[in-house]
Formats: sequence, structure tokens, C-alpha cells
Amino acid sequence: MKTKQTQRLWGAGFVQKPSDAVIGFTAGRDVVGSPAADAALMPYDMWVNQAHCVMLVKQGILPVSDAAKILEGLKHLDQLVKEGSFVLDPSKEDVHTNIESWLTEKLGIDVAGKLHTARSRNDQVTTDMRLFIKHQILAFVEQMLSLSTTLSMIAQAHKDTVLPGFTHHQHAMVTTMGHVLAGFAAMMVRDSERLLQWLNLHNTSLLGSVASYGTSFPIDAQMTASLLGFEKPSVNSMDAITNRWEPEVDYVFALSICMNHLSSLAQTLILWATPEFGMVTFADQFTTGSSLMPQKKNPDPLEVVKGKASVLHGQVVSLLGLGKANFIGYNRDTQWTKYILMDACSEVMFAPSVLAGMIQTMAVHKDQMHQWSMRGMVGATSLLEQYTQATYLPFRVSKMVIEKAVAYSVQPDMVNYGALMKAQKEEGIDASITRKQVRDWQDPKEILHATHSGGGPGGAEVEQSLRVLQKDAKSMHTRVNKYKQVLKKAKTTLEREIQTIIQKGAV
Amino acid sequence: MKTKQTQRLWGAGFVQKPSDAVIGFTAGRDVVGSPAADAALMPYDMWVNQAHCVMLVKQGILPVSDAAKILEGLKHLDQLVKEGSFVLDPSKEDVHTNIESWLTEKLGIDVAGKLHTARSRNDQVTTDMRLFIKHQILAFVEQMLSLSTTLSMIAQAHKDTVLPGFTHHQHAMVTTMGHVLAGFAAMMVRDSERLLQWLNLHNTSLLGSVASYGTSFPIDAQMTASLLGFEKPSVNSMDAITNRWEPEVDYVFALSICMNHLSSLAQTLILWATPEFGMVTFADQFTTGSSLMPQKKNPDPLEVVKGKASVLHGQVVSLLGLGKANFIGYNRDTQWTKYILMDACSEVMFAPSVLAGMIQTMAVHKDQMHQWSMRGMVGATSLLEQYTQATYLPFRVSKMVIEKAVAYSVQPDMVNYGALMKAQKEEGIDASITRKQVRDWQDPKEILHATHSGGGPGGAEVEQSLRVLQKDAKSMHTRVNKYKQVLKKAKTTLEREIQTIIQKGAV
Amino acid sequence: MKTKQTQRLWGAGFVQKPSDAVIGFTAGRDVVGSPAADAALMPYDMWVNQAHCVMLVKQGILPVSDAAKILEGLKHLDQLVKEGSFVLDPSKEDVHTNIESWLTEKLGIDVAGKLHTARSRNDQVTTDMRLFIKHQILAFVEQMLSLSTTLSMIAQAHKDTVLPGFTHHQHAMVTTMGHVLAGFAAMMVRDSERLLQWLNLHNTSLLGSVASYGTSFPIDAQMTASLLGFEKPSVNSMDAITNRWEPEVDYVFALSICMNHLSSLAQTLILWATPEFGMVTFADQFTTGSSLMPQKKNPDPLEVVKGKASVLHGQVVSLLGLGKANFIGYNRDTQWTKYILMDACSEVMFAPSVLAGMIQTMAVHKDQMHQWSMRGMVGATSLLEQYTQATYLPFRVSKMVIEKAVAYSVQPDMVNYGALMKAQKEEGIDASITRKQVRDWQDPKEILHATHSGGGPGGAEVEQSLRVLQKDAKSMHTRVNKYKQVLKKAKTTLEREIQTIIQKGAV
Amino acid sequence: MKTKQTQRLWGAGFVQKPSDAVIGFTAGRDVVGSPAADAALMPYDMWVNQAHCVMLVKQGILPVSDAAKILEGLKHLDQLVKEGSFVLDPSKEDVHTNIESWLTEKLGIDVAGKLHTARSRNDQVTTDMRLFIKHQILAFVEQMLSLSTTLSMIAQAHKDTVLPGFTHHQHAMVTTMGHVLAGFAAMMVRDSERLLQWLNLHNTSLLGSVASYGTSFPIDAQMTASLLGFEKPSVNSMDAITNRWEPEVDYVFALSICMNHLSSLAQTLILWATPEFGMVTFADQFTTGSSLMPQKKNPDPLEVVKGKASVLHGQVVSLLGLGKANFIGYNRDTQWTKYILMDACSEVMFAPSVLAGMIQTMAVHKDQMHQWSMRGMVGATSLLEQYTQATYLPFRVSKMVIEKAVAYSVQPDMVNYGALMKAQKEEGIDASITRKQVRDWQDPKEILHATHSGGGPGGAEVEQSLRVLQKDAKSMHTRVNKYKQVLKKAKTTLEREIQTIIQKGAV
Repeated sequence: MKTKQTQRLWGAGFVQKPSDAVIGFTAGRDVVGSPAADAALMPYDMWVNQAHCVMLVKQGILPVSDAAKILEGLKHLDQLVKEGSFVLDPSKEDVHTNIESWLTEKLGIDVAGKLHTARSRNDQVTTDMRLFIKHQILAFVEQMLSLSTTLSMIAQAHKDTVLPGFTHHQHAMVTTMGHVLAGFAAMMVRDSERLLQWLNLHNTSLLGSVASYGTSFPIDAQMTASLLGFEKPSVNSMDAITNRWEPEVDYVFALSICMNHLSSLAQTLILWATPEFGMVTFADQFTTGSSLMPQKKNPDPLEVVKGKASVLHGQVVSLLGLGKANFIGYNRDTQWTKYILMDACSEVMFAPSVLAGMIQTMAVHKDQMHQWSMRGMVGATSLLEQYTQATYLPFRVSKMVIEKAVAYSVQPDMVNYGALMKAQKEEGIDASITRKQVRDWQDPKEILHATHSGGGPGGAEVEQSLRVLQKDAKSMHTRVNKYKQVLKKAKTTLEREIQTIIQKGAV
Repeated sequence: MKTKQTQRLWGAGFVQKPSDAVIGFTAGRDVVGSPAADAALMPYDMWVNQAHCVMLVKQGILPVSDAAKILEGLKHLDQLVKEGSFVLDPSKEDVHTNIESWLTEKLGIDVAGKLHTARSRNDQVTTDMRLFIKHQILAFVEQMLSLSTTLSMIAQAHKDTVLPGFTHHQHAMVTTMGHVLAGFAAMMVRDSERLLQWLNLHNTSLLGSVASYGTSFPIDAQMTASLLGFEKPSVNSMDAITNRWEPEVDYVFALSICMNHLSSLAQTLILWATPEFGMVTFADQFTTGSSLMPQKKNPDPLEVVKGKASVLHGQVVSLLGLGKANFIGYNRDTQWTKYILMDACSEVMFAPSVLAGMIQTMAVHKDQMHQWSMRGMVGATSLLEQYTQATYLPFRVSKMVIEKAVAYSVQPDMVNYGALMKAQKEEGIDASITRKQVRDWQDPKEILHATHSGGGPGGAEVEQSLRVLQKDAKSMHTRVNKYKQVLKKAKTTLEREIQTIIQKGAV
Repeated sequence: MKTKQTQRLWGAGFVQKPSDAVIGFTAGRDVVGSPAADAALMPYDMWVNQAHCVMLVKQGILPVSDAAKILEGLKHLDQLVKEGSFVLDPSKEDVHTNIESWLTEKLGIDVAGKLHTARSRNDQVTTDMRLFIKHQILAFVEQMLSLSTTLSMIAQAHKDTVLPGFTHHQHAMVTTMGHVLAGFAAMMVRDSERLLQWLNLHNTSLLGSVASYGTSFPIDAQMTASLLGFEKPSVNSMDAITNRWEPEVDYVFALSICMNHLSSLAQTLILWATPEFGMVTFADQFTTGSSLMPQKKNPDPLEVVKGKASVLHGQVVSLLGLGKANFIGYNRDTQWTKYILMDACSEVMFAPSVLAGMIQTMAVHKDQMHQWSMRGMVGATSLLEQYTQATYLPFRVSKMVIEKAVAYSVQPDMVNYGALMKAQKEEGIDASITRKQVRDWQDPKEILHATHSGGGPGGAEVEQSLRVLQKDAKSMHTRVNKYKQVLKKAKTTLEREIQTIIQKGAV
Repeated sequence: MKTKQTQRLWGAGFVQKPSDAVIGFTAGRDVVGSPAADAALMPYDMWVNQAHCVMLVKQGILPVSDAAKILEGLKHLDQLVKEGSFVLDPSKEDVHTNIESWLTEKLGIDVAGKLHTARSRNDQVTTDMRLFIKHQILAFVEQMLSLSTTLSMIAQAHKDTVLPGFTHHQHAMVTTMGHVLAGFAAMMVRDSERLLQWLNLHNTSLLGSVASYGTSFPIDAQMTASLLGFEKPSVNSMDAITNRWEPEVDYVFALSICMNHLSSLAQTLILWATPEFGMVTFADQFTTGSSLMPQKKNPDPLEVVKGKASVLHGQVVSLLGLGKANFIGYNRDTQWTKYILMDACSEVMFAPSVLAGMIQTMAVHKDQMHQWSMRGMVGATSLLEQYTQATYLPFRVSKMVIEKAVAYSVQPDMVNYGALMKAQKEEGIDASITRKQVRDWQDPKEILHATHSGGGPGGAEVEQSLRVLQKDAKSMHTRVNKYKQVLKKAKTTLEREIQTIIQKGAV
């Protein structure tokens, strides 16, 4: 019976079908569009509205009776949003207009018309964005740390799996799979630190900065900051509003460093998976086929990660450009920072988890790795180091000897004894070195046994560095959780305040 | 009666409401999302399918009876697309899969399964993209030329409207509104030339390049190129497929130069429209108000144009990054060029027409312009040139005299006679210059009357340069039309071939 | 007597000649080239050589007698460098080769040939670069904090100097010079924090990472890290060497944010200094003239700051591109990060101090500022806020009233009483407002007196924010000094070790 | 006897030492600095001065006697420059000031002070830059075409050398070395076309645009344009001067596309040269060694090419940023375009020739290439195409058969007969295919013999495409020569005019 195949133009020979997540990750925006940007701001704008409303009441700017109605209205709207029955109306400029308009239709302008007192859309949206970015960061750090953990676990398992280490794409010295993967884990950990640094710079509420120059209403910016889980309000309103690009570019830049590291991991895996290297094979569910070529199992997710890195680079540029030479106060150009930021968040979203899945499921061909570790003169540096230690020759002298020995060796894979003897002699040296030493000093296992410089490829070194990384990762998890608790506590407090007002209003 | 206002948070004092186009342009992606990328490729992929199918028949690769059914199927699908009743199914990777899948369900795999013979999605999508870009270019050039015409017309009307010319944001020499706008018209014309240059590089069909390494089916790539209105097929299949980023970046780069020029026009208008300059006022329908500040009529569309310029810069970077250091053959990273290219097209789409509308409707305050033309020593250079011609002094000597005269003048607006005399004397010069000469040589009208260097601000010069620009623009219109005719002719020929096959198939 | 003028083509009318620093800053690389990159690394490479040599001795890898000679040799070389009598020889690849080669010529290969034991140029140069960047950061933070102090002082002096605050380049609300400058000071302080964050990520020695895969010599990477003032050695040698672009891009990115802020300050000053705004005038020594136009005093340094911001953006891109998709281990591409990093350092070097000088010496035209603060309806928002508070009308309703009042006002400068009454009536409102109230609510001084939202333009608010900034700046100074002390202590310790070895070697 | 090695830390085993060109190319700016930018403008500024001076005489603005002295002075200065005895004085802002100052010291201000009549440094330097860029383009196109020729020649020689073609870094279909290299040659030819397109946009003299707003002196801009070999003068002086970034970015963008192509060629060669691929080996003189690892022969020049591509990307960004949102007239920011442009020219300068040398001298391991062409299922697509043609099965059906056959094949290298039979049967197909057919259809030589789609990998196809490329390259050479002749003729005419004036002046 003929295989039915209308959903995909390939895959009859796949043992496991690619997961929908992988297809989605690689299909990009081909068959799925992007939602309106303000849809993503909805929950944060609701929160900001609530906090602002509560503050207005407590400062005596808004009567409690009106506030109660507004807060009940917002609660109702929140319900509709959650049910999916509230959709942004494109005829109403933005999320802020949509919400005020909905409230006005529901409560009348005499009530709803009071909510926008002592604020502007400028301080509103920038505060929304900081909430949005903060939540994105906390989620993305967890993804990066999770990938780091995956890498560390596999590094641990392969701490003694030898393979050639490269420089310049040429065999350099023997290393281990554990060493390489621990190196990538270290990048993820450092990237998490960089992501969290954002919070030292921008964990600030902008409510109260208003249009750029404050307000004469007796607001309490400290109170709204606190109800939104921010550390403090902005110190200068002009600074706050004019620089609506800076928290954005700080985050997108940090993401682009993440993507650079992920793309390097991707590139390394891509090369290892070529027929020529033959060191790893990816599970079917992480590859895609061709509409034409029947044998194809391509590592598309890895290529997509590389492509997304370049996308992010461009977004950094756009944001930097938007932040240059701005005259004081809000300028509309900076609205475009919203879209760029959100696009960046979408692009990176599944990259760490797809990579983690791919690495967890790939087959590692240890034999092939070991075989390549005996070729391409990869042991020559170790030979040189041991030879230097054995002969007490100056390093630069023994290096010349070994360079010549490399040149004199018949095969391109290992320095042979005869070649070394010839080279020694030419340089006027007469060290007594045995055939076995020359062989042992180039043997991958022996080499790795000998390294103990810290941070190097030997099994013990790898284990030691994994311990350090684990400790660092744990401390970051703690920091992430602390930030989350502050947010949660702010929400609880706000909820309590809202209840109080609603009750008072009902009286 | 209270004004009802639920759609917008501002505008009660606006004489004319902003047009929907302007609101849409400035609201960006706040409340409207982006469609799936492949929706835009639908018409081009249909065309490519038809041309490929016809070629397969004529080369004897596909039986006419099957081809007739496929071509009728495609016709039917085309109808559905036009009616809006065919929507891309996200569970089917891309537009190519969607179409083949639809055909397969309709015609069965024994017929529909033959269409993908001798091709790959690689040559298909890259050919789609070239068709897409070509149509975009021809449309955008017309927009740019149209803006150029608007600018030229207003330049003509204001060829004698004096205003200060600036360098370094300081008054330099007197110029005319005509001169400035003609300058911007010249940029639009040059930009159109740059856009059309794309066609000298990339007016090529990639069908036949297949996955990157050709095919053993006896196809005729020249025929498909011709049926799609291309000049020729690609000369090398590896080159063609590997460089799926180059036509994209060439176009986006050309667009980003357009946007730079438009942003400079925008910035110039923004400054002219400040209360301080007071030289122009925009029509209400091209401004937006504030949710807070009641007096606001902001030139948002101009700021948006500036913002979009930075967006384009980033897109150039992303595309350049995607094109770096690629190993031979198709790599999935380059799929992301599709989204970047399409985003760029969306961003720029209405920029020239919104600017044209804004310029056509703005009020020009000639009196204010003239007044500023008498201030800030803007006539000093003219004074220097005339003084040099009258006295036969070496230019460098007379410049020192006038520099000192500027310093000695009591007011900061014009060099006065006494100051010039004092400066002359100090430099040991005794030229007989009259009070009237000093005044006339700094008078804007007199100054402009005197310039005739070609390309300068005088009325006659402006008229002359507008004639040149008109001629250039006309010749570009001719080129655009020629390209359009080739496309139209190709479609007609293809349609005829399709009819013939359908008729033969019915026999 | 004729003024002699052969050095510059302008300036006869300047009271004070531009300083050489300003001329140098604006002349860029026109008449001065760039030195070889490794010249700047000389002192750091010397330090690294010394620390490495000391460690080799203490680990028993290098005999004390040889080490003593090498360390004495390095001392001698250091002397020559300081005297300027050692110049890098272009025929010797780089600074490392130059130094080893010099030592070899002086001491012979049997001694000098031992220095390169257990290291590679890869770990050497990356460690050099971290030392270089760290010193750059500590110096640049001080410059930024110094500019922040200058801005704060002038902000303090002008805390009550009113001028129009802008949004969209249109009059928004009244602000003060103090508020605007304090806003810029806040940016500088935040930028300093970002610069210092680098040290949390990259205060790491790479010695011991060797070529990318460690060494079998029994080195002590902790010891060299400590002798170089680093916090610790790198945790993974592959990570360390492969990412020779990451500390670079982190720093250049942080600089580019600085430059964005400086460019915005520059653009603000440029506009304020146009004849149309007329709010400030720069001192002669910070302007340049024209080869042609005799009246010109252009704010070139400010334009140069803007230009440099764009230069930095490009450098960020280059560095990000160099960090993408790298296969494990060192690749030569990343050598180019050195030049980009150093170019970036040169570009930014004098920007903060030139700006500080320019701001300190500029004339502030308070009268003109005040005059503009009465125009362009800049008081309308205050009027609206006060009117809302007085009438208890819903904000949205009173905003419509004032919007109409703005439209009905005869002059474009202030809402008049009649217009407000007409608007009220139309909206069916009958609030009793006096003519005086309408006037007072739009009076700049009254407005500023009323604002007290925190971070706003009022004098008291400005003072409060300046106190916060001062505290933050002080804490950063403390951190900078702590880092400097660590470096100094490391040098002292190293020096002591060197002395001990030299003495032992002499025995 | 011990090998002496003080100049380089590696290379004892190299048969041929790296050439100085290669060392220079890879050492970058480590030990060689960059000259002052205006040094490179010297010859062009001299030319512009001469043309301007001649025009002033012919228009009666400058007396012939003064002009004669100035032109003799310039001749003398030219001689000094050629002898290297004139060096730019950094205390004199720029090249223009240096030259005028030199003339003034030699001839006195009464003569030399007349040269700057009716011009500004703005039109002068932009005209200099266009001359500079034009000369750069003509030289660089020749380099690119030369590399294209090299590639074509080697492609011709290897038109039948089989190797695996890749997509997604996985084996796709068999190709030839000829096909791959011809593909790169095609890129170089297209790049040359793009470079020459610059001349259609910017072959324009800006003399007469003066400071941005023309002059009242009766100059003849057409004449100076002609004496400088330009097609015409600029049509609008404001456009001309404001857009001092556009010719720059157009050129640097075109260069960055070149570098992308070169970097892809580099990356392809780098992978082919890994021990794992083992397909090519570079000549010793194009590789560099390690300070530590004795076996190293690294393809550094290729990595440097990749790095430079990223450098260029950043320069495009800087230039685009400098061109955004500029207010009319000259602004100093754009001076920085000079340095970026010149840096870009330096970076790319030797890239094509180094690559050409590397390709000409590399060893091609045909056996290894052939061996890999039999592995990784690289014949499966050909098998599918031939199987489809033999069985008349719908392509999509036969693809499923072969996909399964691939999965059922025991070895990962070739589809075997049994597997195909099993797959056929499962799909209910009973086509009679022989064991020999299955083998032949996967045989590299047979496969290449069968392809004839145009632009594909077969020998005949490669030859055909090389003929097309040769023709295109030839026509570009012709265009380059035409431009050169125009320049030469302009110089001759100018020289004659100068002689005439000098003679007249002497009378």
C-alpha cells in the first residue's frame, strides 16, 4: 500500500517523526504570522492600571467610589482577556486606548474618564515594557540554566570520551567531549549572569514620569513602584522617557550574546555530524528531510539557531540607532523599539530547549572520535611538552626539534621515532628517548591523564569545573526566585488593596 | 453636550481628524499583527508551479493528460485564493507543501505526485522570492518617483521663497525652499536608479538549480525563465542556491538608503515645524495628539519615518550576517532572509506617500522664513564674495576683513557698515565701499539673484535642475514600464500554453 | 597690518582660539594616523611575561638562574620602552614575538627559549586584552562620573531656570535647565554602572588555557591570576580562548550606550544653540569656523560626538559578527577584535571631557529660555491639571474642554480666558474659573512650583534627584578605587617576587 | 647546529616560508599602524586644486599671472610629495589647510590667498573622495576579475573532479570541483558588476556646490567636472554636500558583498582542508604555525578573510547611521565617513590576491574527494531521478520508495538492491530494476554524465558556464578601461591647460 504523505514532502524513511516543536522552530514565520504587539502587553497594562488606580485613591486624587467601579471593571476585563473573548480593536490606536475605551463604554466617561489622571501613555507603556522584559528575562535565564544543566550532565558522562581539539579547524591537541560541553555550559552560566545584570540597571518603575516632565497631581511614585514589584521609581522623568530604547537594547544585546554562544554550539555539532567527521548522529525527530533528496536528515534546528543569531545582531543595531542623538523628551521613533524587542523575544524563545533536546538524543560515536584523536598529529604538542620535561631542553629548542620531527614523519598522523631521532641529531641534540615514550606521549589517554592545569580537558579537571558551574548556576536560580517572589508579593499586596477599595466603594 | 471620545484619547480640538492611513502608519504593529510570510508568496508560487508544469510537458517529462489536470487544479486553487477561501495550513510546513498537498487531495498522488519532478523547494522558493522582490521594486520605484514629483512641484512653486540655509545647524547662506525641496527630489531620483540596478544583477530564474546541484531530467531552464519574465536562468546552480541572501540584501540596502533620505527630509521638516523655527505647520490630519497634553499636534509620521530608517539598518546587518562564511549549498539559516525582506517591505511601504501628503498639505510661513533669512549673519558669505569681487582683494585677505567685521558688528544678525570699515582699517585696506552696498550684499533677494553657479539656490538654477530631474524621472518610468510589459507578456504566453495543454488533455 | 593666517583657514574674529584638544578631537584622523595595536599592549604583555615567569619558577618548571636572567632582561626592556627607545619591529609578527626575539638576542635561546614554556600566544594575548580593557574601563568610568559631576553642578545652579520641555520636538510642558541636565547626569551614572558590570563577567585570567586545551606542565593558574590582579583563572580553557570577542563586545557595547547618551546631549545642545532657539551660545574655543563663511562658529565637537556614536554601533556589529558560529578553539578571525576594541577606545576617549568643557563654558540665555516658555501653549497641560483639580471634572472630560480651548485661543501661545469659557459651555460645563487662574496656571514659575511628583522639573525635585545621583556616583568611585588597589597590590607583590628571584639567581 | 629562530616562533618544519604578503595580511595592524587619512587624499586634492585654478582663470575670476604662480607652486609641491619630502603637518587641520598654508608661505597671501575663491572645503573634500573611491573601484574590480579568472582556470582543469556536493553540511548530490569553483567565479563577476554600478550613481563632480548653497562667483562647474574626468557636476548643491556618506556607503556595501562571497569561499576551503575532509592541503607559504604546537599549518589567511567580512558589515552600519536624519547642509559627523571608507579599502585590499595565490598553490586530493563521493548516500537523489524515469512512477511515489530504501540499506553509504526491492514491495510496486542499474545510478561518474540541466555540475555544463563568465568578465574589463581612459584624457587636457597658463603668466 502506498504511503500517504500529504502533510510533509519527506520522511518516509524516518524512524521517529520530527516533533511539532521542531517543525515549528524550523518553519519560522512561513505559515504562522505574528500577533499584534500590544496583545503581549495586555496583562502588564492591566497590572499598571490597577496599581495606578489604587495609588490615586490612596493619594486622595480619585474618589473611592469611582475607583471601586474602575477596579471592578478591570477585573471583569481581565476575565474576558483570560477567556480569550477580548480582542484588541485595531481602530483604537493601542492597548491603552482599547482598555480606556472599553471601560468608558462600560462605566461611562464620568467614571472611566478619571483613570488617566496624572499619567500619560508614555510612562504607562514604558512601565509595561519593563514588566514585560523582566518577566522575559526571568523565564529565559531559566531556559539557559536548564540547557547548562543538560550540557553539564552529558559532559559528566563523557568526561573521558576523547576527541580531537581544534584550533583554526585543524587538529590542535586531544580533548574530551566532557571538556567541550563543559565549556559551552560555562558560556550559558555567564550569559545568565549577563541577563540578570539588566535588573541592576532597569528594575525601575516609570509611573510618575508622565509625558517626560512630571505632573502637578500629588502622586506617590514610590507606591506604584512597590505595587508593581519594582525596586524604585525613576530618578528623573526626562531621562526615563527619552531613553525608551535603553532597557530594550540592553536585553536584546544580552540575548544576542546568548545566541552567539548557541550558534557556536550549533556550528560545532553541525561539523561533528558531517559524514566526514562522523562523530555524532542526531535523532530523527530533530532533523528534517528534503522535498527532493531521499537520503536527507538535515540538522535544520542548528542552522536555524545560527540564522537567528544574525537576526538578533540586526536588532541590536536597530535599537542602537533608535537611541542615537535624540532630542529631550519622548519621540515617536522609539515606539519601534517595542516591536524589535518582541521580535527578538520570539526568535530566541525555543532555541535553548531545542538544542537541549537535540544534544540529549544524539548518538555519540566514541570509536570514531577516538580514531580521529590518533590522526592529524594531534599528539605532537603533548609530545613536545613531555620531551621538554624529559630532556630539560629550552622549550623553544625542543619545539624546533619536534617541528622538524613532524616534517620528517612519513605518515601525517603521528610523529615516529626515527623522525624524532633525525630531527634531534640535526639540531645537535643527543637526548635518550625511547620508542615507547614517543608513542605514549602521543597517546590520547596518556595525554589526558597528564593534564592538570585547571580548566583543561582531563577528566578530573572537567569534574572540578562542573562543580564550579553547578554552584554558580544554583546561586542564579536563587536570585531568579527572589525576583519572582518580589513580583508575587507585589501582586498579593495589590490584590488586597483592590479588595479593600472595592469593599469601601460598595458601602 | 459632552464630546464623545472612545476611539482616541485626543483630538477634540482638531479641525480635521487624522486619516486612517496616518493612524495606521503611526500605530505600527501595536494592534495589527503580521501575516504568515508565505501568504505573500502564494501568487508567485502559483506562477512558478504553472511555468514548471508547462515546461515539463514540453520537454516530455510529464504526460499532457496529467499536466492538464494539474493545471486545471492550479486554476481552481487560484480561484479559491482570490476568493480568500484558501488559507495556509500551519501544519503543512510551507506554501509549497500546502499547494502540493491540496493538489494531492484533489487529484490523487498519481497525478499530483508528478509536479515536483526535477525541482526542489530550494529553486522554487528562491525563484518565488525574486518574483516577489521584482514586483516590490517596480511598485516602490513608482512611489519614490511620485514623491519626487510632489517635491518638484512644490519646489517650483517656492523657487523664490527665501529661508536660511544651514550648515552645522547654524545659519550658513540664504537659500530657497525650492532649492531645498529640489535637493530632496534629486535624492529620490537617484534612489530610484539604485533600486532599478537590482534588476541588472538579479533578474534571473533559479528554476533548474534544484537542490543546489542540478538534475538529470532533461529540463529547459531557459523556457521557465522566459515564462516567468526573467532575462535568463542562473549560470551556476551552486552559486544560485548558496546565495539566498544576496538579492535580498541588495534590495533592503537600497531601501535603507531611501529611508535615510526620507528620514533627513523628515528631520528637516521636524525642525522647521518647531515653535522656535516656526517655518511650517502641518495639517491636522497628519499630526497626532497626546493622551495627556491638550495642545499637542505632533509630527508623528515624520518620527516614524526616522524610526523605520533605523529598523532598516538592522535588517541590512542581519542579511549581511546571514550571507557570511556559508559552506557551499543550501543552509537553512538563509530561510530567515525571507522574513527580514518581507518585514523591510512592510516597513517602507507607505513612507513616501505619507510624506508626500504631509508636504502637500503643510502651511509654509514665508514671512517667518524671510525674517530668519535676515538674522544670524546669514548674509555674511555673500557680503564676502561681493566685497572680494568689488575690491579685487585676495579671497583669504577679504575673508579676514569680514570675519573681523562680523565680530565688530553690534547686532548678531547683520554686518554693519561701521564694523566693516573698522575691520578694513585694521587690515590696512582702504577700499571704497558704500553703506548701501554692505546692506544690499546681505539682502536675501539680492543674494539669490546673484547666484548662478548651477545647482544652487537661485530661482533660475532651481528651475534648471528641476528640468533635469524631470527628464531623469521620465526615463525611469519608461524603464519600469518596460519591465512590467515583459512580465505581462510572459503571463499571457504562459496562459496560452496552459490553455493549449488543457485542451489537449481533454481530448 | 594684515593678519597672518597660515595654520587655519578661519578664526580672525574669534575672541579665544579653539584649544588644541578641540582641534584634535574634531580633526579626527585627517592628519594623524593610528599607532600599531600591539604598542598599546606592550605594558600588559610585559606584566604577563613577568607573572608567568615567576609562576614557572615557583612551580619548579623554570630554574631560578634562568628566570633571574629573563626577569632582569624584561626589566631592561621595560626601561627601553619607557624611554621610547624600543619600537615594535614589523618583521616580527606581534608584540609577543618582538619581546621573545629581543630576549633571545640578549640572553641566547638557551635562556630566553624557556620563557614560552606552558603557554601559547592565545592565552597570552587574551590575558593582555583583559588587562587592557580593565584599565580602559576604570579610566573611562572616571571620565563619565566627572562629566556627571559637571552636569550636576550646572543643574544645581540652574535648578530654577525655566525653559520649554519638548516631546516630538514640540512644546510639551515647562521644565528647568536643572531638570534636563540632571537627567543627563543620571544617564552618565547608569552608564558607569553598566561599564563596571564588565568586571563581574570578565575579571578573569586566561593564563593556563594555553592554545585552548590546557597543558601537561604543572602550572598554577591561580597564582598568575593573582599576580595580575584578576579575581580568578578561567574555568574552562576552550570557552576562554574560543570567546575572544566576548569581553571585547561587552565593553564596546557599553561604550556605545555611553555614546548614545552623549550624542543625545549633543543634539539637545545643538538645537538649543541654533539662532532660532537662541538658548545657549558656546565659547569660541569650543567652536570651529569655515574656510569660506566668515560668520561661522560651529559646534563641531558636538557633531563629532554624534558621528562617533554611529562609529561605535558599527563596531558592536563587527564584534558580534566575529563571535557568531565559531567552531571550538581559537580561530584567527577573532584577532580582528583587537583592532576594533582599540579603535573604539580611541574614538570615545575625549568625548566626555570635551562635552564637559563645552557645557562649563557655554553662555545660557535665561531670558530667551523664559520667553520660549511662555509660547507654543507650553502651559496647557498644567492648565488642564489644575482645572481638573479645581473643577473635580473627570480628567478625560476636562481634557476635551482644554483641547477645544486651545483651538479657540486666538494666539498660538497661551489659552485665553474667553476660549476656555466658550469650550466649557460647549461641553455643557459651568465651572467658575477666574481669568487670573487661567493665567497663573500657565505661568512657568507657578507651574514648576506646583510639581512635586519626584523626578520632575521643579527645583526641589531636581535637588533631591541630584542628591541621589551624588550618592550613587560616590559609591562607584569607591568601587573603581577598590579595583585599582587590587591591581596595585598585585603589582607590588609581583615586584617583590621578582626581586627575590633575581637575588636568588645572582647567588 | 641549532636552528636560529628569532623572527618567528614557529616554522622549523616548513618547506617554504610564508611569504611576507601572507604574514602582513594575517598580522593585520598588530605591528603596523595606519597612516593619516589625508595622506591618501593628497594626489586627488592636488588635482582638484589644479582644475579649480584653471577654471578660475578661464572664467576671469583669477588673473593669469597669479594662477601661473599658483600652478607652478602646486607642481613644485607635487614633486615634493612624490619625493616623500612633504609630510602633512598635524597642527594644520587637514590636507586642504596644509596645501594652502604651504602655498601661502611660498607665494605670499596676496597670490596664494586667491586659490580658495568660490569654493569651500566641503565641495573640495567630497570631490576628492569621489576621485579616491573611483580609483579604488577600478583597481578592486580588476582584482576581483583576476580572482575570477584564477578560479575559472582551476575550474576548467577540475571540471571532471568529483566530490560530494553538500546542503545543510550533509551530502546532497555529487558535484565537481569545477562546478564549485565556477560558482565562486560567477560571484566575483557579479560583484564586479555591482562595484561598477557605483559609477552610474556617483560619477559626479561636486565642485561648485561650495558650502552647500552655491556661490555668486561666475564659476563653470561643468568645466571642472570635465577636467577631473567626471561625467557631470552635481544637480543640486544641498543634496551634494548633505549626502557625504552615500557614495561611501554604496561602495563599502558593495565591498561587503564581495567579502561575504570571499568568506564563503574561505569557509569552504577551510572545511575541505580539515583532517576529516582531507580534500585539499595548502602550500606552506600560505599557512602559519603556532608558538606552541609543533605540527600546526593553519589556514590563517582564510580566517582573516572571514574576520574582515564582519569588519566590513560594521562599517556599513556606521555609514548608514551617519546618513540618517541629517538636517540640511553639511554636518561634521559625516567627516567620519572618510575614515571608515579608507579603513574598508585597507581591509579588503589584498584579500582577492591572497585567495588566488592560495587556490593556485593548494594540493587537490582527487582520490579522497572521489572516495567521499561514494559515501553518505550522496547518490540517492540520482538513483531516485533515474528510477522515476525508468519506472514512470509519480515522483512523489518513487521518492517514498527510495526514502525507505535508504532506511533499509545496511551501510550508510549507498542504497543496496535488496533494500530497494523491499521498499518497492512495501509500496505495492513491482518495477523490474537490475542490480547493475541501482549501482550505476549511484556512481559519481555516471551521475555527472547524466546531468545537463544548465548551470549544473557536469563537465560540459561547467565548460559552458565558464564561457559565459569569461564573456561577462571581458566586457567588464572593457568598461574599466573606458573609465580609465576618460581619467587619463582629463589629466592630459588639464596638463595642457596648466602649461598654457604658466606660459601666459610668464609673459
